[in-house]
Parts: sequence; C-alpha cells; structure tokens
Amino acid sequence: MDIRLLKQLCEVHAPSGNEGAIKEFVLAYVMAHSRKWNTSPEIFHGEQWQDCVCLKFGNPRTAVFAHMDSVGFTVRYFNQLLPIGSPEAPAGTLLTGADSLGSVSCELDYDNDHHAIFRFGRGIEPGTDLTYRVNFRNTTRYVESASLDNRVGVYVALKLAETLDNGVICFTCGEEHGGGSVPFLIRHIYETWGVRQALVADVTWVTDGVMAGKGAVISLRDRNVPRRKYLDRIKMLAREAGVDHQHEVEGTGSSDGRELHASPYPIDWCFVGVPQEHPHTPAEKVHKHDIKCMIDLYAYLMRNL
Amino acid sequence: MDIRLLKQLCEVHAPSGNEGAIKEFVLAYVMAHSRKWNTSPEIFHGEQWQDCVCLKFGNPRTAVFAHMDSVGFTVRYFNQLLPIGSPEAPAGTLLTGADSLGSVSCELDYDNDHHAIFRFGRGIEPGTDLTYRVNFRNTTRYVESASLDNRVGVYVALKLAETLDNGVICFTCGEEHGGGSVPFLIRHIYETWGVRQALVADVTWVTDGVMAGKGAVISLRDRNVPRRKYLDRIKMLAREAGVDHQHEVEGTGSSDGRELHASPYPIDWCFVGVPQEHPHTPAEKVHKHDIKCMIDLYAYLMRNL
Amino acid sequence: MDIRLLKQLCEVHAPSGNEGAIKEFVLAYVMAHSRKWNTSPEIFHGEQWQDCVCLKFGNPRTAVFAHMDSVGFTVRYFNQLLPIGSPEAPAGTLLTGADSLGSVSCELDYDNDHHAIFRFGRGIEPGTDLTYRVNFRNTTRYVESASLDNRVGVYVALKLAETLDNGVICFTCGEEHGGGSVPFLIRHIYETWGVRQALVADVTWVTDGVMAGKGAVISLRDRNVPRRKYLDRIKMLAREAGVDHQHEVEGTGSSDGRELHASPYPIDWCFVGVPQEHPHTPAEKVHKHDIKCMIDLYAYLMRNL
Repeated sequence: MDIRLLKQLCEVHAPSGNEGAIKEFVLAYVMAHSRKWNTSPEIFHGEQWQDCVCLKFGNPRTAVFAHMDSVGFTVRYFNQLLPIGSPEAPAGTLLTGADSLGSVSCELDYDNDHHAIFRFGRGIEPGTDLTYRVNFRNTTRYVESASLDNRVGVYVALKLAETLDNGVICFTCGEEHGGGSVPFLIRHIYETWGVRQALVADVTWVTDGVMAGKGAVISLRDRNVPRRKYLDRIKMLAREAGVDHQHEVEGTGSSDGRELHASPYPIDWCFVGVPQEHPHTPAEKVHKHDIKCMIDLYAYLMRNL
Repeated sequence: MDIRLLKQLCEVHAPSGNEGAIKEFVLAYVMAHSRKWNTSPEIFHGEQWQDCVCLKFGNPRTAVFAHMDSVGFTVRYFNQLLPIGSPEAPAGTLLTGADSLGSVSCELDYDNDHHAIFRFGRGIEPGTDLTYRVNFRNTTRYVESASLDNRVGVYVALKLAETLDNGVICFTCGEEHGGGSVPFLIRHIYETWGVRQALVADVTWVTDGVMAGKGAVISLRDRNVPRRKYLDRIKMLAREAGVDHQHEVEGTGSSDGRELHASPYPIDWCFVGVPQEHPHTPAEKVHKHDIKCMIDLYAYLMRNL
Repeated sequence: MDIRLLKQLCEVHAPSGNEGAIKEFVLAYVMAHSRKWNTSPEIFHGEQWQDCVCLKFGNPRTAVFAHMDSVGFTVRYFNQLLPIGSPEAPAGTLLTGADSLGSVSCELDYDNDHHAIFRFGRGIEPGTDLTYRVNFRNTTRYVESASLDNRVGVYVALKLAETLDNGVICFTCGEEHGGGSVPFLIRHIYETWGVRQALVADVTWVTDGVMAGKGAVISLRDRNVPRRKYLDRIKMLAREAGVDHQHEVEGTGSSDGRELHASPYPIDWCFVGVPQEHPHTPAEKVHKHDIKCMIDLYAYLMRNL
C-alpha cells in the first residue's frame, strides 16, 4: 500500500467549501502519474468545474464519485465555532487553519451550553475555517488519522485510475456539508457522455453488521434506497469477483449518492466503500485489508458493470 | 368499477426501490388494452426510464403523475427491520417478500425500544424488502386493502387513459421514500414536449376538513405551496365539471408534487386525489364514490386545462 | 432614498405562492422607468417565468436574486391558520387578504395548543392567504414595516438597475416557503447566457456580530457554505469599494442561495444584504444607511466581479 500517498492526502486542509488545496494536490498527482497508467484519461478542471477534478477514461459506462472535503469548523464571532458537517471531537483537540494574520493552531473547547469554542492566544477572523491537526498512524493492520473520510476514497480512486480502461472518476466537493458539486458533475457526465451508472467511493461505519477487516462494504441502503435491480447486479458481480466484501443496511446516513438520487437524470447509484471506526473524529481508523479489497472490487466492477 | 384490476394492482409487491414487478404489470396492462383506448399512446419505458412507464397521448399540455411504489420494510441485521417510507402497522401484521432462500411470510413485532423486528422460522437476508400481506376487501361503499396508496392513483390513471386524447401519464417510483424518478421524468416531459402543467394523482387523508364519500380532493397546499394562479384555474374547472369534490388545506405531507416544485423547470402542479382512512396501514380504506369522482374530474381537467 | 417606492413595495399583498400582484407592480415599474436607466434591459416574464421577472443588461457575468414573496398564513378549516414560511407575530396582529366574498381584515390569535387561529365576523374560505396589515414608518434613521423582508432587496435591485451596464436581475418567488423558482431561473441564466456568478439580495438578522447602521452584510456562510474562492473575491472587492460593510457567519438560516447551491449548474453564490431587527414580524426594522451601502456595494460588485 502506498501509505505515503494516503498520509499526504490526509494532511491537506480542505473542509467543505474550501477544497482549493486538495484539488491542486489531486490535479498535480494526476498530471505527474497519469502517463504511466494503462489508459491516459482526459482531465477536466477549471472554473466550469469549481474545485472538482474529473477524469474520463476510454468509453465510460460508469462514474465513480470520491469526495475530497472533510468536516471542520468555521470561526463565528468572538471565540465561537460553527460545525462544518458533523465533527465529533473532545475538548482539547488541536485545530489548524489560517487567517490574514497567519497560521492558526488552537484548541477546541465547549462552553456551558455545549457550544464549540476555541482557545488561542489571539482572536481569529470570523469566517476562518479550521480542521483537525493531523496525526497519521500506520500500524500492521490499520491506518488511523483525521480525514480518512474521505481521503481513503480519493486514494482508492487514484489507485483504480492506474488500471482503468473505461470509466469516469470524479473528485467532488462539499459532501460533508450540503453537497453542491455532484449535481453539476452528473449533468455533464450524463448529458455529454451518456453515463447512467454510478458508484460512490466513500467510508462508512463499523456497526453490528459491518466489521473492520472483513472487506469492502456494499451498502444496500442508507437514508436513501437505491434501485434494487442495480444493487442486484453489483451483488452478483462482487460474488463473481471473489473479493472479500460485506453488505450494509442502514436507515440513516448519506453520501454523494443522495444528490445522484435526486438529480434530473436517470442515474443508478450504489455506495461501495470501507468501514471505519470513530467517524468524523481526529482519529478515524480503517483496516488496510478493507482498502485493498475496495480497490480490487472497484477494478472488477468498473470492467464488468 | 373494475374491482378486479384494482385488487390485482394492490397485490403486486413493490416497495420504494423495488418497482420492477409493478412496472411489468402496468406495462403489460397498457400493451394489452391501449389499442381499445380513444387514442393510442406512445409508450416509453426501459433503462433510460428506470422502472417508470410514461404514456404520451396526442399533443400534451398537462402531465399526470401516479406513483406505483408502496411503503414497506427492509431487513437490517439479525431480526431488525428498517422502514421504507412511513409504514404504520401493529405487532402481528403479516409481511411478505423473498430472499435467495425463497419466499418469506413473517410477522411484524416491536422490541422494547419500539424498533420494528420480524418473527420468522429462519433468518432473512439483510437487504430483503417486505410489504404487508394483502387482504383486499370490497364492500358496498368502500375498498379496503394494503397499498391503496397509491394503487388507486395508478388505477385512476389507467381508467383516464381510456378516454384521454391529449396528455402525458407517468407511473413513477420511489415516492414513499425520497423520490428520485420525478426529476428525470419532468426533464424529459418539459424539454421534449414543452409540458408545463402537472396533476398529481395520489391518495390523501380523511381529516376534519376532508371526508370519505364527499368526492375527489383538490389540495390547495400541503408542506409545499403551489402557485395560486394554477390552483384558481383548477378550482374553477372543477366547479364547471359538476363533479363532487372537496378542497384540502394542510401544512404537512407531500407527494410527487414536491419534486415537481423543486425541479429546474417552470412546472405548475396540483394534487388531485381521494381521501383515505388508516393511511400506510395494512387496511387503508377508500370510498368508491370518491374514486369515481376522481376519474371524472381528471377527464374534465385534462380536456380543459 | 425613494421612501415612496419602498413603501409601495411593502404594501403589496404577496405571500409565497401568490406573487401575481407584486410581479405586476415590479413589471409596471420597470416598464415605466427602464428607458431612463443607463442601459435598457431585456425584460423576461410570462407563463414560462411563472410570476418571476428577469432583466438582462448588456453582457452579464453575474446575476442578482431578490425574492418578492413574504411570509403569511393560509386559512385551513374553521378558524385555523397554517403558516406560510415562518411568521412571528403576537395575538392581536391584523391580517388582510381576500376570498370570494370580498376583502378580509381579521385578527390573529392562538388557541390553547398555541396553534394560530383568526378572529373575524364571518368564516373565511379555506385556502385563502393572509399577510400582515402594513404599517409603514419612516424615521430619521430607520424604516419599519411588515415585509421589509424582502421588499428592501427588491428596492435595492431596482435602484441598482438604474446604473447597471452588465448583469442579470431576477425577481424571484416562493423563497419564504420552499422555493421553487430559482431552479428554473438559474437554468435559463446559465444555459442561455453562461452566467456562473450570483449574488443574493436579501435581509438577514441583527445579531451579536452584525449591527444595524454598520453597513451592508456579506454572509460568509449560513446553513450552506459557499465556495471560499468566490467569497474571498467579494471580500476583497468590498474593501476596495470603500463602502461600509460587515461579515456575517451563521450556522442556520438560508436564502435563494440554497437553491443555487443545489442546482445542476456550477454556480458560485454569496448573500449580500442588510441586517434587520424583528424578522418576520409585522414591524421589521432596517437602518437606512445600510440600505444605501447595499446599493453602493452592489453597483461596485456588479462592475468588478
């Protein structure tokens, strides 16, 4: 596993709304490596794509969506913090960012009403966004870091790109907080390339039905219920692929799939990802076997869907 | 009234997300009967339409939307059940479905935390969807069955089709649980045929203002507020039509109208349906006079809107 | 300041869903005055635009959205009232509207369950919509009235129109209650004119960070988080402009920006408005200096974005 790449991805500051830096990182990586890939993709980016990056390989039938943004906080007034997405962190967590006075490294705390605040030697400009300070740990079986949600998905998509012959890979923005980029991406993908099949590459939760180390996760539903016919094809292909995988069934939670579901295009979608412990905390934890399985399963699905 | 057709429609297993069987039923019915209709429609279906069916008659000005899916449950892990839509059923209700081991007929129960579970002689595969076992009763004045919401709307649309000269009829999916098909249907209808007027054929609730047996229901608002000018035209036409009808005014609830309202097309919409007792239970109950009025009112509105 | 125009705007009855009258007012004003403006706009309206009005000046790069609707109530059954949007008014508030029996001027009250009801000498037809009776007051520094949200935004847009050379101004519907018009407006604006930049002209709240009299408000986030790169350009231009302004940072609330954010087009948006006291009450209060700053800031932003 290319742990160095995953660590670099995790260390980029990019809460929802401020994905400029991760977009530049991903774009530079693609520019540097895509000539060695099986198929050289067309690369789409620029103001028409906001901070997203879109790669088109061959004659695509299926598009992969991997969101690049993370949870975080926005400085309100005084020492108040507002959540970006749903961060889950104890008092004392270190937060980093920058305002016009320079870089910021402050401490998360909570007031008596359990509202998030920061502790720092100076004020911070309202509107400044902060993310967890990254402490990346690589053990025999696990990786542990802030922002594994969804830098693991970005990592898997970049590894998939090495062998992909036909397909689209989209690196998306804003997933943790209200979305906003998937609707215009799928419009382009559907209207220009006629693609109607989608896979959402993201991380989910370890639960009573989904375990770390047991393989990739195919989600049969979350808050949204995807179309059964498409799920059945994916389940069948996953069995054929011979890759370790698990079926998830949940009533809550959502992903880029939510906006594919609601789009004005007849898109079938399915979430295929890895389980994670301690979601949205500074120490998200993912089993490395599951990441490997996710890459293998995506390679098989993209060839056979 | 063609009670046999309505009964057959109610008996098809098709919770949101798994509308394949009801789509096949409706399509086969249309294929078998449409040659005897006043106007033979163009029939649209297939993967571009997911599990929807769309009928185009003559030069359409108005589109009718009737959702085919019902509420139900998804098997989670162990004996746990997750709702599809908002089912309302007592412990002991019989549920049916099928997994890879064969057909399933189990009993609904609730655990100490009021979470839905099932009781059955064996485990059921996670992801399996279940609907109420159908007990259809036809009395002098009423029909009573599971899934009258919205097989009554489908029935009315099929009866309307017999005399319709100009218009679109859409049989839609997913309405009970997050929608997803109306956005791409209205895109086609608006962009290809220029249709901007919509009627939503669905069932609503008996309340302190809407009574069983008093005729079709024109909803002046629910969670969404339709455009007043369009409502006023429909109210005027309904008076002209001389068909029994009632005005509904609610602050909650929604329908396929929600997605028409939010779509990127300038669509006017109005809910016109029938009132129902015991919504989302295994014994939904609708007055037959109201169904007849709904058919008559649709016929008049489609000619004159 | 043209207090007479603002007063006339506030006095028009136009809750969400029933914007016919304010649309006619705005359209008549534009027809009467636009020949004296720097640039004569193309004027778009009619059934394709529902009750919206859209003005196109020169070669637009940026579109302004000002919603015309207000909060209000719908008569349910008996003497019950349902909210349109989130009205905030004490018992005794006077409400006005009309049904088929004539004009209505009734009193708001609350029953023992805190549900809104009306008191009037006769029944009112279900479905009738009511708004606050307008008591417009103009003092040295403030204007105070019902419906300043968002007739101030409409006023600012009409004043901006006098000097605008390039840009789009949209007068929108339904913002207070579920939206519905911004999606089709932005579709036209993006697809026909290629515009990707938007400004939302609306009123916000006086809070611990935003004060009356301190200038126009640039909102860096509300429930939705706009794209940082666009906000940074607007912040920079606002400093250059030398117009009094304030930065807002909130975790709740939304505007027409919500639907721009979710649209299938890559639109950047930012809320630029004025702070207001007593929002959604019959006595909303806005500082006149802030209105002047808002006009000046819009003129500068539209020239330089």
